[in-house]
Amino acid sequence: MKSKLINQDGLARTTEIEFEKGTIKTPVFMPVGTYGTVKTSTPDELLDLGAEIILGNTYHLMIRPGEEIIKAHNGLHKFMGWEKPILTDSGGFQIWSLSKKTKINDDYVEFDSPVNGDIIRLTPEKAMQIQNVLGSDIQMVLDECTKYPATKMEASLSMKRSEKWAQRSFDAFHAHQTNNDSALFGIIQGGMYEDLRTENLEILADIDFDGLAIGGLSVGEPAEERAVVLESLIPMMPKEKPRYLMGLGTPVDIINAVSVGVDMFDCVIPTRHARNGQIYTSKGVLRIKNSPFKNDMLPLDSECSCYSCGKFTRSYIRHLFNCNEILGARLATIHNLSFYFNLMKAIQDSINKNQFKKFAKKFIEQYQQ
Amino acid sequence: MKSKLINQDGLARTTEIEFEKGTIKTPVFMPVGTYGTVKTSTPDELLDLGAEIILGNTYHLMIRPGEEIIKAHNGLHKFMGWEKPILTDSGGFQIWSLSKKTKINDDYVEFDSPVNGDIIRLTPEKAMQIQNVLGSDIQMVLDECTKYPATKMEASLSMKRSEKWAQRSFDAFHAHQTNNDSALFGIIQGGMYEDLRTENLEILADIDFDGLAIGGLSVGEPAEERAVVLESLIPMMPKEKPRYLMGLGTPVDIINAVSVGVDMFDCVIPTRHARNGQIYTSKGVLRIKNSPFKNDMLPLDSECSCYSCGKFTRSYIRHLFNCNEILGARLATIHNLSFYFNLMKAIQDSINKNQFKKFAKKFIEQYQQ
Repeated sequence: MKSKLINQDGLARTTEIEFEKGTIKTPVFMPVGTYGTVKTSTPDELLDLGAEIILGNTYHLMIRPGEEIIKAHNGLHKFMGWEKPILTDSGGFQIWSLSKKTKINDDYVEFDSPVNGDIIRLTPEKAMQIQNVLGSDIQMVLDECTKYPATKMEASLSMKRSEKWAQRSFDAFHAHQTNNDSALFGIIQGGMYEDLRTENLEILADIDFDGLAIGGLSVGEPAEERAVVLESLIPMMPKEKPRYLMGLGTPVDIINAVSVGVDMFDCVIPTRHARNGQIYTSKGVLRIKNSPFKNDMLPLDSECSCYSCGKFTRSYIRHLFNCNEILGARLATIHNLSFYFNLMKAIQDSINKNQFKKFAKKFIEQYQQ
Repeated sequence: MKSKLINQDGLARTTEIEFEKGTIKTPVFMPVGTYGTVKTSTPDELLDLGAEIILGNTYHLMIRPGEEIIKAHNGLHKFMGWEKPILTDSGGFQIWSLSKKTKINDDYVEFDSPVNGDIIRLTPEKAMQIQNVLGSDIQMVLDECTKYPATKMEASLSMKRSEKWAQRSFDAFHAHQTNNDSALFGIIQGGMYEDLRTENLEILADIDFDGLAIGGLSVGEPAEERAVVLESLIPMMPKEKPRYLMGLGTPVDIINAVSVGVDMFDCVIPTRHARNGQIYTSKGVLRIKNSPFKNDMLPLDSECSCYSCGKFTRSYIRHLFNCNEILGARLATIHNLSFYFNLMKAIQDSINKNQFKKFAKKFIEQYQQ
């Protein structure tokens, strides 16, 4: 992996991250393909929409189909038919959010499989070994996702465990990684405490990660608390390495984070909300199931040129949702991903023209949250 | 509508049916798009797969979204983004199979909407008026679908009502049809009684329909009873008009019906079974959810060149079904429709080369029902 800065406009920046499998222009949005499929879409549709990198969830893939089956396909790319880069998380976040029985100590975390109740043990070494089997281009260290709310003591203890695991992940990655082009990112924790976040960043910056992520956000905290962490933390992160904000967010979340220097984003909302009939437009979210759209002959978003907007009316797409037709979820997904990719492209263009602040202001004024 | 015979091989035949919206080569399979969408597929995918005509269900469309909304789109083609021909049934079959409270007399049929319980009244004139709003290229008369089993008296009374409705449908169609290129087909009833079927055919052949359909089959009768009706009835049908067997069937059903001279077929099974993980192949149906496919690195059907077979393993597609991923239903639908269209093309080729019997024998020997 190589990365280079293209332009900086205030704290916002455009970069290019190069892999053998393809180049990623940032700020980038990465659609989430939990089980080896970005829900409803084929890999070719994602390419056509302009996806440059997608995300896979190690936790879900280790449970179904399991690493043996992906190994037999020579990795996740071949399993799911996606040739461009893939980022995989380590499973840490899902263990805390999805498993009921979790046992943790400094050596390992144990959790119950939500599919069959089996007890699964994960260590930093095992998390790296599985991601190596997945063959992902960007791999993430195993971390403990600090709960919210947490006392400073709790956040500190949790962070220190993640620090040890970061080093163990790094060591395991460099000892066993079979793909020379794969990159490893560290994850900054520290709860909502600015000083802990700074302390954690200093430790992780001393380990030679290829990039750094901000974890432990979007766990229930108010937007203001999150903004304080982001605004203090991100400008201190190493300038030469990609910065990835995990699990966020809405279009406005993304613009705000870009404005302090974040490069990479992933989030389920454009695809998950699409399946619920929530359509992203430049004027805000449109709930296509609502009755005013029954007779609406306009496209989902008049400013959009995606397949769904070029071919179908709101009235037709509402009808599909009303009848629980799969095509409704598909057309909404195509549109929402297209909206997100176009947003990232507009953000990049505005940064490259040193007009990001103007763009951001105009976008946020138009957008009804 | 114009139709012409291309070749006859035994009783099997190839024809071409021409509409302004496109030419249909027969024997043809018409995918079913009940609610204005062939489930899971975009219209462009159907075109790519080779669909020449699709079917819409008048009964379902009159309930949701209702004729007013389709009228506002200037018809079903524009509503759903499909530019090639559409055939719509009259709703008769669904009234008997889906509605709980049905009241019928010689003037009209009344049934309760399964969506909101409203009482809806349909007459032959109303059925034609709605199909005119839908703008379908092939429209069907309103008929009474004779129940199975039925005594000869019951079948005869039901058939006589359908005869009157056929004439009323014909009169209404010719009085009010606004699209000069639309065709009207009559529907032969008569239960499982050869002499009633023959009697009904003679009556309907005297009305100047553009084509004739065989209705009231696939209602629970044994395959043998159905075969007797088809074998006696179809060779007597007018040679110069398209012959449409409603609601059938499996690949073997289709081959058997082609062998006695049927031109047109519609059936939900390739699409419905796809969503249940039943995959059609030249060797029979493969149930992709079954555990032997967990590690199977072959494509769904090694003899198929569809997108799903060219790109993904059985193991991956089984995994998608296992995780209830929509992409599984999509890939299975693409394959099953591709299988059906390839089958129809192979049937046409064999008829044009006067080798249909040989083809049919070989296909049925290979195919495990």
